Amino acid sequence: MTSTAIDVRVVPSYVRDSWWTPERSELSAAGSAEVRDASTGETLALVSTAGLDLAAAVEHARTVGRKGLQALTFHQRALKLKELATYLNAHRDELYEVSARSGATRTDSLVDIDGGIGVLFTFGSKGRRELPNSTVLVDGPAESLSRDGSFLGEHIYTSLPGVAVQINAFNFPVWGMLEKLAPAFIAGLPSIVKPATPTGYLTADAVKLIIDSGILPAGSLQLISGSARDLLDHLDYRDYVSFTGSASTAELLKSHPNVAVGGVRFTCETDSLNAAILGPDAVSGTPEFDAFVKSLVTEITVKAGQKCTSIRRAIVPAGLVDDVVAAAARRIEQRVVLGDPRAEGVTMGALASTEQLEGVRSSVQTLLDAGAALAYGSLDAPEVVRADGTRGVADSGAFMAPILLTWADAEAEALHSVEAFGPVASVIGYDDAADAVRLAARGGGSLVATVCTNDPDTARELALGIAAHHGRVLLLNREDARSSTGHGSPVPHLIHGGPGRAGGGEELGGMRSVLHHMQRTAVQGSPNMLTALTGVWHTGADRNFGTHPFRKDLSELKIGDSVRSDLREVTLEDITAFANSTGDTFYAHTNQAAAEANPFFPGIVAHGYLLLSWGAGLFVDPEPGPVLANYGLENLRFITPVAAGDSIRVTLTAKKITPRETDEYGEVAWDALLTNQNDDVVATYDVLTLVEKNRSAD
Amino acid sequence: MTSTAIDVRVVPSYVRDSWWTPERSELSAAGSAEVRDASTGETLALVSTAGLDLAAAVEHARTVGRKGLQALTFHQRALKLKELATYLNAHRDELYEVSARSGATRTDSLVDIDGGIGVLFTFGSKGRRELPNSTVLVDGPAESLSRDGSFLGEHIYTSLPGVAVQINAFNFPVWGMLEKLAPAFIAGLPSIVKPATPTGYLTADAVKLIIDSGILPAGSLQLISGSARDLLDHLDYRDYVSFTGSASTAELLKSHPNVAVGGVRFTCETDSLNAAILGPDAVSGTPEFDAFVKSLVTEITVKAGQKCTSIRRAIVPAGLVDDVVAAAARRIEQRVVLGDPRAEGVTMGALASTEQLEGVRSSVQTLLDAGAALAYGSLDAPEVVRADGTRGVADSGAFMAPILLTWADAEAEALHSVEAFGPVASVIGYDDAADAVRLAARGGGSLVATVCTNDPDTARELALGIAAHHGRVLLLNREDARSSTGHGSPVPHLIHGGPGRAGGGEELGGMRSVLHHMQRTAVQGSPNMLTALTGVWHTGADRNFGTHPFRKDLSELKIGDSVRSDLREVTLEDITAFANSTGDTFYAHTNQAAAEANPFFPGIVAHGYLLLSWGAGLFVDPEPGPVLANYGLENLRFITPVAAGDSIRVTLTAKKITPRETDEYGEVAWDALLTNQNDDVVATYDVLTLVEKNRSAD
Repeated sequence: MTSTAIDVRVVPSYVRDSWWTPERSELSAAGSAEVRDASTGETLALVSTAGLDLAAAVEHARTVGRKGLQALTFHQRALKLKELATYLNAHRDELYEVSARSGATRTDSLVDIDGGIGVLFTFGSKGRRELPNSTVLVDGPAESLSRDGSFLGEHIYTSLPGVAVQINAFNFPVWGMLEKLAPAFIAGLPSIVKPATPTGYLTADAVKLIIDSGILPAGSLQLISGSARDLLDHLDYRDYVSFTGSASTAELLKSHPNVAVGGVRFTCETDSLNAAILGPDAVSGTPEFDAFVKSLVTEITVKAGQKCTSIRRAIVPAGLVDDVVAAAARRIEQRVVLGDPRAEGVTMGALASTEQLEGVRSSVQTLLDAGAALAYGSLDAPEVVRADGTRGVADSGAFMAPILLTWADAEAEALHSVEAFGPVASVIGYDDAADAVRLAARGGGSLVATVCTNDPDTARELALGIAAHHGRVLLLNREDARSSTGHGSPVPHLIHGGPGRAGGGEELGGMRSVLHHMQRTAVQGSPNMLTALTGVWHTGADRNFGTHPFRKDLSELKIGDSVRSDLREVTLEDITAFANSTGDTFYAHTNQAAAEANPFFPGIVAHGYLLLSWGAGLFVDPEPGPVLANYGLENLRFITPVAAGDSIRVTLTAKKITPRETDEYGEVAWDALLTNQNDDVVATYDVLTLVEKNRSAD
Repeated sequence: MTSTAIDVRVVPSYVRDSWWTPERSELSAAGSAEVRDASTGETLALVSTAGLDLAAAVEHARTVGRKGLQALTFHQRALKLKELATYLNAHRDELYEVSARSGATRTDSLVDIDGGIGVLFTFGSKGRRELPNSTVLVDGPAESLSRDGSFLGEHIYTSLPGVAVQINAFNFPVWGMLEKLAPAFIAGLPSIVKPATPTGYLTADAVKLIIDSGILPAGSLQLISGSARDLLDHLDYRDYVSFTGSASTAELLKSHPNVAVGGVRFTCETDSLNAAILGPDAVSGTPEFDAFVKSLVTEITVKAGQKCTSIRRAIVPAGLVDDVVAAAARRIEQRVVLGDPRAEGVTMGALASTEQLEGVRSSVQTLLDAGAALAYGSLDAPEVVRADGTRGVADSGAFMAPILLTWADAEAEALHSVEAFGPVASVIGYDDAADAVRLAARGGGSLVATVCTNDPDTARELALGIAAHHGRVLLLNREDARSSTGHGSPVPHLIHGGPGRAGGGEELGGMRSVLHHMQRTAVQGSPNMLTALTGVWHTGADRNFGTHPFRKDLSELKIGDSVRSDLREVTLEDITAFANSTGDTFYAHTNQAAAEANPFFPGIVAHGYLLLSWGAGLFVDPEPGPVLANYGLENLRFITPVAAGDSIRVTLTAKKITPRETDEYGEVAWDALLTNQNDDVVATYDVLTLVEKNRSAD
């Protein structure tokens, strides 16, 4: 690919289900801005929100957007994300082409574009695997709040009744949007996306693809290209704002009265001075040392070090500082090729803009003034590979070569508080584990830290020591050096965010982020009422005995449908035969004297597994029918022992029904209750089965 | 009891493990205050924090307090709470006597004192039942982040590395302290308690009992009697502030720079305009109507209606407004006796102070000015029973009789926003369910709402409609009217707090509140490293085969200790015999043609319960030993079907060890892995057992 002159585009917004482009005359008004190519400095795009009615956008989300999303279950929303991921995957080349203009290499774009699509796939899958196919999520078990069991309490999550406003950083224009959109969407919240202006044109292109796909319901996604202006003035406690960006912008947003005291829910992820700690065992020549150096170089060169998660402070045993600097320098020399990402062989691109370049240079100067020494690299304009493949000193674009700093004084305040948001890291020494923990915590709260050691005790001491100051801790050793997803990469399964300087927020973490977009409410009531509310059968609620429930497919089966067996007596011969056939000759089933000496048994008792097996024999309806398989069991507790002469019966009740969106069957969890001849509870458990949606469709 | 003249006491603070009493000369300085008896107006106490070093108190908590708490496991902390509950229970009469001076009736004190002790008991029990006996809590399952299983991710909670500052309201001086102290303590956070000045003398007496008990470790509890002054200036992202009180004070605290932008964790519970909705089915004469009226009267008279959770807005079918007002008035006339709580027969006491009385009267006047009509009661000084049993119009003390308001315009803004924090409620009409939901939500976020109906569909529509605007929803009907803990009573098992106007916080909710005092951190690493970090064995980590682990007591058993059985072949005869003996003749085990037609089975397959039973036979070591019982099973999933001719083996590995603090045994969870002759996974599950701590001690 070669750099070609391109028309200056005006980046549109998408509000109230239509594209909106500012008047050309507005493009010099307040709230307007000009965007440039990171490598060439050419003007790429113009943005403005002057004249855009943001109050109407919020109202549209709360009405049209909410209505469309609330009509869908968790599974239906998750499935739409999967469809969207598939659609974007087929159109990713269009995004790659645009992405290169932001200074991103192919690898950088992979993290942003494929990474973002990957979040959609993960949430599309997890949402269907881990949430019920409904709109209410039950949180934890019900608790009896009265002696007679007629009054229970539990917790449910329901969608926040507002809008999710997502304010993103410039460094990941696609991933940043999708990783916030996915949980909001599954939670049932319409989103208003506000990307950072320098790379918002790429976000706009991604939004265009999403809208063109026609997959999302009306009003569930809006885009504001340009200043967010008065957007926060229109939000209240029903709404959720998630922000990624600089600490100073975060401060501004947090101080908005609607956020500070008005109850707008606010989560925040700002860059931080992330640490990587090298264990004392990980000396030069060990796999851990090599993995540490590799990670350090990767973190300051991928995205030109413009990642909130980059390593800024390498905290290494005092005697290893020189070794680490030398090894990192060597690796940079050997591996890093700086230049226009559109040129062949380039592995490190430019910063996002010349403003960013100025900022990083100025931060490095502050660090030098505060006592840092330039151990590797320089602030001079670097040699780069241009788009046409020629080499030369960079005369345009936002290029900067990697820099390593060392410090005579590892306690210097600036070292732990001034961040150069580019290809820059400090390497400092520590004396012992407590010292390493203390230095890492000096960052005042970070997104992520690496602990690199092959000693489990060191790993435990360091990781638990720093955990409460971090959102994520990566344990790096020879076992995972090759398979690790890396220090700087948030994964959709794990939370992303951190305390203190890192913003105090939490994103991702699988369904954890969905819950952040919902209200947790305690509900109290009778078993019947909580059953009605949650769609999950509660102990104490009415049971419906009639046709054997194994004869009903999902179109017929109702929560509370039950079968109760007759009593079946257990004899000593049964117990002995079971012991012999299974091999389970545990003394409590075979030796009367020893069993009596056991504090929990009256004498020889039936095997728990005998009771379970007989339970199945008592509840099963054996002929072919809609129940296809028993695929598992949960929450089994044996309560009252069963001795020879006792009898057991089982009561099985349809507890939870989860039809699958993409299969001809679904999951049914059954409440199983084993009782004895005195109606004492022998055991309780949930039987997990697969049941056909429509038996007649076979 | 009679009211006797008492000495004016100076309420001390407890900081850095000693009692601190201000100089008499400081008692008129800024930050000082005078406290009066609610019923008689006598001066009871003086407080001041002038001269108290609050920075030193914070530092003491972070060092001495943290050290003492971190030396204890979750179970050890929980056990201390139980001991403390028992101790306070034995000394509660001392607190009751002092409590009466705050205007509290015996019932009011019961809620405050016994309620507070009850929270300690609940947390003491739940902490040991629901948390591991360690200092690290694992949140959710580990997820494989690499194809080869060498890189996993999961989440852990560790104690925040700071102090819990607890700022309480005047209405529950004992409960308010204990419900915040309990979760902080279990989480391992030292507490600094700052009670409201009007009733802080009672909190100080409770703290005196706690300190005298000698149960809590040094530095884990400090008390500030009087103004909190510059306390927040000394806090940062490591610390957790929980506040209960007025919205205006909350606003002040939330605006403190350390909270607004400094990352101090802040949770907040303010009073709100809680609603109670009467269903259209619950007409006069139904049990629901009676329960609704009873609840309404209780909520505005207990604690003289000074509860954040009181009902302020009764939202009833438009045609039932008059019936509800008349029935409530009748009940007040019949049941409520206003007076000095120390007098016989009094069921409703005074407001906490004459300042409170002035405030409530003024709010009622605002409501009247905004269109409310006085449907029952008056603002005149009421007749009361004095401490000596005589009756007469109240001439001192903060007495106020119950008031019911009605509204020509149910949309009036003041009705939904002006709170009279006393014995006052409005009764308004609604047209349909959507209207009722909308009116309830007009409160802008509330702590609690009651939905009173016997119709499950109405309950579901109303409760799900309002859930996201509330922290708690009580479903009231004939089934739980008698057993319900009531609209206004937070219970330790369920969260207390609510969105928007209710403060946006969450307290209680069992172990949920403990988690709020901890940092959630994603951890990534190899199975061995995550095992070392969490103390829980992870799939893929090393196994130790040696002595059969069933021969080891808890002093010998280590995570990872394993046994692997030989293969055992399953024959068709085994399957048939199992079907016959258990009665489980499901077609997949008995009918080849039907089994083949099933989408999940190759033909006849062994019962899952046969595999489980054989598994036990394969892993058990039958002779008496430290393993006492198999009390349950979790997470069972059948993966690969087993047909005749296949063989199975089991590998059992010690996964999680939880010694009990108060028993001679503990729980051991074992990872059970069933594989076939091709090493395909047949089933995975956790076997739950009880194992002795010291076998030789028998």
